[in-house]
Amino acid sequence: MSLLTQEHELVRKTAREFAEKYVEPIARKMDRENYYPREAIREAGKLGILTPTVPAEYGGGGGDLRSAVVVLEELGRVSGGFSLLVEAYGILFADAVNNFASRRQKEEILPKVAAGDKIGAFALSEPCCGSDAAAIQTRSERRGGEWVINGHKMWITNGYYADYYLLAARTGPLEARHKAITVFLLPRSNCVEASPIEVMGVRGTGTAELKFNDCVASDDDIVGEVNGGWKIIMHTLNVGRVAISGVAVGVARGAFEEAYQWALNRELFGKKLIDFQNTQFEIAEMAAAIETARALAYYAAYLYDVKSPDFLMMSHVAKLQTARIAVDVTRRAVQIEGGFGYSKESKAEMFYRDAKILEIGEGTNEVMKYVVFKLIHKR
Amino acid sequence: MSLLTQEHELVRKTAREFAEKYVEPIARKMDRENYYPREAIREAGKLGILTPTVPAEYGGGGGDLRSAVVVLEELGRVSGGFSLLVEAYGILFADAVNNFASRRQKEEILPKVAAGDKIGAFALSEPCCGSDAAAIQTRSERRGGEWVINGHKMWITNGYYADYYLLAARTGPLEARHKAITVFLLPRSNCVEASPIEVMGVRGTGTAELKFNDCVASDDDIVGEVNGGWKIIMHTLNVGRVAISGVAVGVARGAFEEAYQWALNRELFGKKLIDFQNTQFEIAEMAAAIETARALAYYAAYLYDVKSPDFLMMSHVAKLQTARIAVDVTRRAVQIEGGFGYSKESKAEMFYRDAKILEIGEGTNEVMKYVVFKLIHKR
Amino acid sequence: MSLLTQEHELVRKTAREFAEKYVEPIARKMDRENYYPREAIREAGKLGILTPTVPAEYGGGGGDLRSAVVVLEELGRVSGGFSLLVEAYGILFADAVNNFASRRQKEEILPKVAAGDKIGAFALSEPCCGSDAAAIQTRSERRGGEWVINGHKMWITNGYYADYYLLAARTGPLEARHKAITVFLLPRSNCVEASPIEVMGVRGTGTAELKFNDCVASDDDIVGEVNGGWKIIMHTLNVGRVAISGVAVGVARGAFEEAYQWALNRELFGKKLIDFQNTQFEIAEMAAAIETARALAYYAAYLYDVKSPDFLMMSHVAKLQTARIAVDVTRRAVQIEGGFGYSKESKAEMFYRDAKILEIGEGTNEVMKYVVFKLIHKR
Amino acid sequence: MSLLTQEHELVRKTAREFAEKYVEPIARKMDRENYYPREAIREAGKLGILTPTVPAEYGGGGGDLRSAVVVLEELGRVSGGFSLLVEAYGILFADAVNNFASRRQKEEILPKVAAGDKIGAFALSEPCCGSDAAAIQTRSERRGGEWVINGHKMWITNGYYADYYLLAARTGPLEARHKAITVFLLPRSNCVEASPIEVMGVRGTGTAELKFNDCVASDDDIVGEVNGGWKIIMHTLNVGRVAISGVAVGVARGAFEEAYQWALNRELFGKKLIDFQNTQFEIAEMAAAIETARALAYYAAYLYDVKSPDFLMMSHVAKLQTARIAVDVTRRAVQIEGGFGYSKESKAEMFYRDAKILEIGEGTNEVMKYVVFKLIHKR
Repeated sequence: MSLLTQEHELVRKTAREFAEKYVEPIARKMDRENYYPREAIREAGKLGILTPTVPAEYGGGGGDLRSAVVVLEELGRVSGGFSLLVEAYGILFADAVNNFASRRQKEEILPKVAAGDKIGAFALSEPCCGSDAAAIQTRSERRGGEWVINGHKMWITNGYYADYYLLAARTGPLEARHKAITVFLLPRSNCVEASPIEVMGVRGTGTAELKFNDCVASDDDIVGEVNGGWKIIMHTLNVGRVAISGVAVGVARGAFEEAYQWALNRELFGKKLIDFQNTQFEIAEMAAAIETARALAYYAAYLYDVKSPDFLMMSHVAKLQTARIAVDVTRRAVQIEGGFGYSKESKAEMFYRDAKILEIGEGTNEVMKYVVFKLIHKR
Repeated sequence: MSLLTQEHELVRKTAREFAEKYVEPIARKMDRENYYPREAIREAGKLGILTPTVPAEYGGGGGDLRSAVVVLEELGRVSGGFSLLVEAYGILFADAVNNFASRRQKEEILPKVAAGDKIGAFALSEPCCGSDAAAIQTRSERRGGEWVINGHKMWITNGYYADYYLLAARTGPLEARHKAITVFLLPRSNCVEASPIEVMGVRGTGTAELKFNDCVASDDDIVGEVNGGWKIIMHTLNVGRVAISGVAVGVARGAFEEAYQWALNRELFGKKLIDFQNTQFEIAEMAAAIETARALAYYAAYLYDVKSPDFLMMSHVAKLQTARIAVDVTRRAVQIEGGFGYSKESKAEMFYRDAKILEIGEGTNEVMKYVVFKLIHKR
Repeated sequence: MSLLTQEHELVRKTAREFAEKYVEPIARKMDRENYYPREAIREAGKLGILTPTVPAEYGGGGGDLRSAVVVLEELGRVSGGFSLLVEAYGILFADAVNNFASRRQKEEILPKVAAGDKIGAFALSEPCCGSDAAAIQTRSERRGGEWVINGHKMWITNGYYADYYLLAARTGPLEARHKAITVFLLPRSNCVEASPIEVMGVRGTGTAELKFNDCVASDDDIVGEVNGGWKIIMHTLNVGRVAISGVAVGVARGAFEEAYQWALNRELFGKKLIDFQNTQFEIAEMAAAIETARALAYYAAYLYDVKSPDFLMMSHVAKLQTARIAVDVTRRAVQIEGGFGYSKESKAEMFYRDAKILEIGEGTNEVMKYVVFKLIHKR
Repeated sequence: MSLLTQEHELVRKTAREFAEKYVEPIARKMDRENYYPREAIREAGKLGILTPTVPAEYGGGGGDLRSAVVVLEELGRVSGGFSLLVEAYGILFADAVNNFASRRQKEEILPKVAAGDKIGAFALSEPCCGSDAAAIQTRSERRGGEWVINGHKMWITNGYYADYYLLAARTGPLEARHKAITVFLLPRSNCVEASPIEVMGVRGTGTAELKFNDCVASDDDIVGEVNGGWKIIMHTLNVGRVAISGVAVGVARGAFEEAYQWALNRELFGKKLIDFQNTQFEIAEMAAAIETARALAYYAAYLYDVKSPDFLMMSHVAKLQTARIAVDVTRRAVQIEGGFGYSKESKAEMFYRDAKILEIGEGTNEVMKYVVFKLIHKR
């Protein structure tokens, strides 16, 4: 795939070896026990693949967005959960910090986060308003010389284990919507109440419901400007849409590879499953879909890397299409594998559950369509 | 729906009340803990809905196939697992026994089974050959005046807890395929080794892998003729295809109803979710799909009840289409519910996992297409 | 298909023989030259299949809605255009007249129309407002003791050749929407300006744009009550939705049958096309879809025939699903036939173009979804 | 879209201006009358867009494959027929000649062809074996020092008007399949009998059935080696698959743009069609599909231009997916436009018919899947 350079392929090799050595053995444990892979996170930190786009000086991978996509693809191929965890960690949190925090904030936090010693989480979604981020109700109020934060966050990946929150809070009236939102970089303290959320797939990501009760922050904890958070959030979500497309590609590939192996070995009606034309065409459909997903994900990342104005459209198209492809390919994989695919002995069973989040998380299909329409309509 | 009579609607009422009173409260426990609902089975037995088509004289529901479909639909609406359990119990086992066993066998077994005191399972599938039933390898060999059965069965619903197996075994050479298969009605004994199988959905059904080690049967345990089992198996599967269509309708409805309620209550971007045209059209798509599924399931059952030659085609069409509709409708339901739909607090999450088995179990979509083609091609 | 009686099968036989003898030979001429089959209409009149539901005393078929569906299916199987023409003629016009006109009006008009001597057209749609019938702008104003009609109708099947129009006109303010619409039974005169409309498929139906310039009607020409037209229109459209589902089934079958024959005879890569598993599964998909469409169309008609309250939901579900099935099946048929299917030597080519109108005419898919939602939402 | 350079955008500008000035005015005439646009071809020749990849020294566009894709996209946006004509002309014929013919052959033929003075056609398909090119039966036999060619070709774009045929003929036994095929560059003479083929869409392309009756060729007319034709054919088809993807993108865009304009202007139920959420999401679906198609087409072309080994996979993926996207987007466009979209006053009506050939011509969807599978399976 030559939207990628030699360097990206080196990153892929590292990520793949890591995935097979450290993630594959714990993928089912994450899924079964909702186990948070604290150790594997540290190992990933050592290799710079936990924060693929954070500069090497801070201990990150020092790569571009395509590097991140490639890393997430390789992780997703063995565990949708681990890949999504890294996406939220390395992009929504660390890449955002790197892009928008002050030198001082970055120096303090990024090395620990990149190493996997301290966990960071992006705390935006709220129970009130998953798709409508401009309506968030968490408030940060000025009291004395401090900010006092109260509110309720939901679906926060890594949130249960996080040491730092990149937290969006309202610093003005609700009616001001996105114009009164500020981003804080908040170290965890016991003002934070966290409860795990049990979900269908991508388990073991430490996804939590968080309550912030009179958490105190100083001006130094603000990222960017007061009431200037929306730009940070939007940029981060837009980048995240490409990153999560890498997760989708990986999940689809993981399911595809197992189904293909199954078809090679399984016998039915006196011949190999792979020798049925229907199986061959299913394999071809899956492969064509995956190549399409990869082209979109890599291309969207490339557009970001070269600062093309076409990036915005393509990041939303990639998110929308790759999520659907992951759902569709994993469904076909389960079907090829039949009873085995439906059992917990297969990986397809897990990938099928993992995939569905991709049509919902970090912007639903409906939000993607809304944005694509807006981009067309204002042209 | 007037393919149904007043009587069917009474059956529905009974099934629905039972489902809401006894099944709904344990549905999540079945799913979470793979809990087999031994007590609820007994309660169902009391009402005749465990074996809807078994004559009243044996303690069954005494209904026709449409009665069974209606019962399974109402059960499926609260738990795909419970409904599938009853389908395998009441149709694949009990209806088959009623149709093909001797008076003596029926009198001995059906009352206990209909009451839910003794559990019956249909033991056909094997690891070798899920979709290719004519290739089964379990052997029953004549030794002395007895039959000695050895073999390995897979995906046997209720199999872990069964007291009786309606078991298909080879009583002639492998090459004779379907012409050398005999059905036995085998009481469980310690010659049977059962291991539970962990699956994605429809959990709590006691689905097991079974090893039969030198199990002994007498001529009296044979159902029908020696080497005459294929006819019994085919008839039972064909009826089962309609019955499981009822499960599919139920699962789709359960997910739909929750999603509709969610849309009525959820607010987003300052209005109710239900007030978005996209939501309304999604609701309409789901409703249209469910009406289609019901029409097919009821119609196929009706054709069986009136002994129409069109039954065979329609039973396969109904199985194929209702399974797809269940997968599609549950996917849309999860999507409407967003993060909630992906969490284990929703029912949609469970129904989504439940639905996928319907494209695989009791004849995959591919087998359905194969049969539909054969029916066309020989016309 | 046993939602149908023996009698329906007799009607089918008559319609099929007629279709093969009179319609098949002119189907391509209708398509190529936009040729209106004046003679075949008279022949159909002789057999009562032009107005299947009009009582025999007026020369109609004297059947129920299932009869009409069966007739339209058999006609559609050889020509989508001819079938649609008969649907608009026999249902939208003649069945509506029979249901709502006075004894005198019926005695005067129906015999001539049923015989195919005089042509009738249902004139509702306008350029302003295809899907929004309540917004029509054609006005009928009281002047002296007469009604003077002015307006502009669009997409009127048989409209170019019609001798009578069942015409919806506004007899009150635009704001009153559906409450100020009256239906007139207007004999054609030179106040009517007709221009043919050229369309993609279903050609030869005499579809026209009509301008009514100071057309004069008397009170005797009113059907039903002044300002009571909406009920007539709604009932007629609801019945029409089932009738046009019969057209859809026919078009799908026509394409399917040709594609199946093609697959039986065509050789490729050294074997018959039918011997490829992909072809077999495509045939099965098409057959399953057609059986689904038939079940829906017959069932919806049956519900009307037995005056079930479920009719309304099912008529919209049937229209929506059968239209999609016709589009999908004809696409698959063209694909199986390859270059031949794309050429004007095949029937599939014509059916593919015919089918698309079914998602648009007499209520778009979107209108169907709107109504299905409304029926759910008010429950 | 930055897989394209500034230079490609200049080519686009030229092609677009040409398309709007010369093709748009005759697009409907081509469609209605099967009119072959002889004059517009000459105009295209003047601008180098008739043979986008032929070197400038021969009068071609001198561009790479991406240039060709961009040209075909812009032409397809106003006429699927014109674009397909140019694709067959400029790629299947002229690009193949440029890649494989001798210097002498190129000097003699390419300038006339590039200028649009002499027409070239690629004559491969036969009635026997559309998808199975290795089975062609046209024979070229050695008699005296000459080759005598007899055979029957089908679906030859530009074939009715061609002055030169790049003709594939069997120069050995049928059993040798692809190993006994030679390509000839045959000037037309009266040994060629041509009959036009009437097709559903992409009309006005001069598509013909050709009979070659004792046509005489010399050794100098051979392109490449005797029995070495397969490599030429395969390479040309592989390149063609990318080129025709450009046609697909154009057709989809043409339909999309009209539908969007329609939605902007059309009023329904008291508001603009574009203000319905369903319309907005349909627009978004179409736009996302088109962006996907473009990404695939440009990327496949790019891979060819940089000689990547990934080209082969991507050319087949692009052909498969862009053809489906064109069919799907044009269907949605017709649907948005409703009755207008079904009438011959809309462009969508034409694009809908045009699009279907893309799933069949130059390799059906099924052939694409077959090749994709083979590429996976041999990995």
